[in-house]
Amino acid sequence: MPARPRGLTDGQAALFPLQRPSPPPSERSMETPLSNAFLFDLDGTLVDSVYQHVLAWREALDHEGIALSVWRIHRKIGMSGGLFTHQLLREIDKDVGPDMAERLRVLHAEAYQRLVHSVVPLPGASDLLKTLSEQNIPWAIATSGRMETAGANLKALGVDPDIATVVTRDQVQHAKPDPDLFVEAARRLDVPIERSIVVGDSIWDMLAAARCRALGVGFLSGGYGQNELERAGALRVYEDPGDLLHHLDEVASRSN
Amino acid sequence: MPARPRGLTDGQAALFPLQRPSPPPSERSMETPLSNAFLFDLDGTLVDSVYQHVLAWREALDHEGIALSVWRIHRKIGMSGGLFTHQLLREIDKDVGPDMAERLRVLHAEAYQRLVHSVVPLPGASDLLKTLSEQNIPWAIATSGRMETAGANLKALGVDPDIATVVTRDQVQHAKPDPDLFVEAARRLDVPIERSIVVGDSIWDMLAAARCRALGVGFLSGGYGQNELERAGALRVYEDPGDLLHHLDEVASRSN
Repeated sequence: MPARPRGLTDGQAALFPLQRPSPPPSERSMETPLSNAFLFDLDGTLVDSVYQHVLAWREALDHEGIALSVWRIHRKIGMSGGLFTHQLLREIDKDVGPDMAERLRVLHAEAYQRLVHSVVPLPGASDLLKTLSEQNIPWAIATSGRMETAGANLKALGVDPDIATVVTRDQVQHAKPDPDLFVEAARRLDVPIERSIVVGDSIWDMLAAARCRALGVGFLSGGYGQNELERAGALRVYEDPGDLLHHLDEVASRSN
Repeated sequence: MPARPRGLTDGQAALFPLQRPSPPPSERSMETPLSNAFLFDLDGTLVDSVYQHVLAWREALDHEGIALSVWRIHRKIGMSGGLFTHQLLREIDKDVGPDMAERLRVLHAEAYQRLVHSVVPLPGASDLLKTLSEQNIPWAIATSGRMETAGANLKALGVDPDIATVVTRDQVQHAKPDPDLFVEAARRLDVPIERSIVVGDSIWDMLAAARCRALGVGFLSGGYGQNELERAGALRVYEDPGDLLHHLDEVASRSN
């Protein structure tokens, strides 16, 4: 095994796990070294759907008589619907009961269904997933959406949830910024979460990555700025899936 | 006249023009000291209309068969329609002739008219303008929109363009990030541009402010992050008009 390159920080060394110093004999195993796994957020990361979600939430909130500036809604997208509602309403000092939370969830899903026809994959998304598969680098999708809204997005992306590894909000107890979705995705891929790279467009993805000791890689394609993503823990920030594909060697080790 | 407070940088001192050291005798005049003037952008700064503009541009571009990720459109909002089109299409290496530029402008205006019913003033916008008027601090609105799209926004805001000072795209040669709109607004208020404060939500407002030596104050209400605005020259960044009103003494000198 090659020595760890000189001058690498701990954070950088984590990008090159195969080049880490050998573990002490007691911790060595006979396993083949694993590659990193990629755990992708869906909305704003692989499909261009953030602005439709923003307007769908705006419509749902309006319907319940809750006036909120649109940028505040945008900044909360990527949380699960339940956390999203509670966090938003806490900002305006309004209490939301479980009945209203459920009504808002249903209203948002209905409004989003009317807009989903305009949702397309982000540039390079399909090529990126194809390239990872060809290089035997495991990948999964972990979304705070439920299958009722994620289904159409996966279809636009050409991903069959019966074949690919897809974890949705319905399948874990806590959603982002809790790390459960990514931890479950890594478990299904049989890759340690500490060797996984979480790729997302929102600061909630980056916070969740840090909380489970995965690495965070951010995309600008959800509308956040580079600095916001970096401050939330992103090690690298790319424009979109095509840009990550173009720079894949910066973060991925080939497994063979 | 009080001495300039110790420890102020040049940038900070510019916030307190009435506390600047006296000019040399040759430059002194008998004028009453002027207060600062506030020159406001409109969309995303006083009214919550950025996301409707984003989707209206998306619809216009789609209609012409131009596929662009929505975040790229969002990041260009606040430029004039003409510059916006050229800059966006340059990014995707596509040439746009004057015919297509004009078609896109019309398609955007039509799409925006269908969405404008959902546009409301941002929190505190009316109170802020009222407070400035009460304190005899001159203010104007300078927008890269034409009156055909700005009219409905001004109405939502309760501003009568026949009474207030409003400069639109139609009335100057170059739009943001050129500073013409703000320079013309200051001229109409009869306040030197160097004593004016440009308030906007986009980096184009901040760049235009720097180019004409006005001070830039940024709002988060258009969806840009604080760091992006600061890097484009914003001296202070507030959430929205209500937040600026709450902190008005940080940037405004009372005129009486």
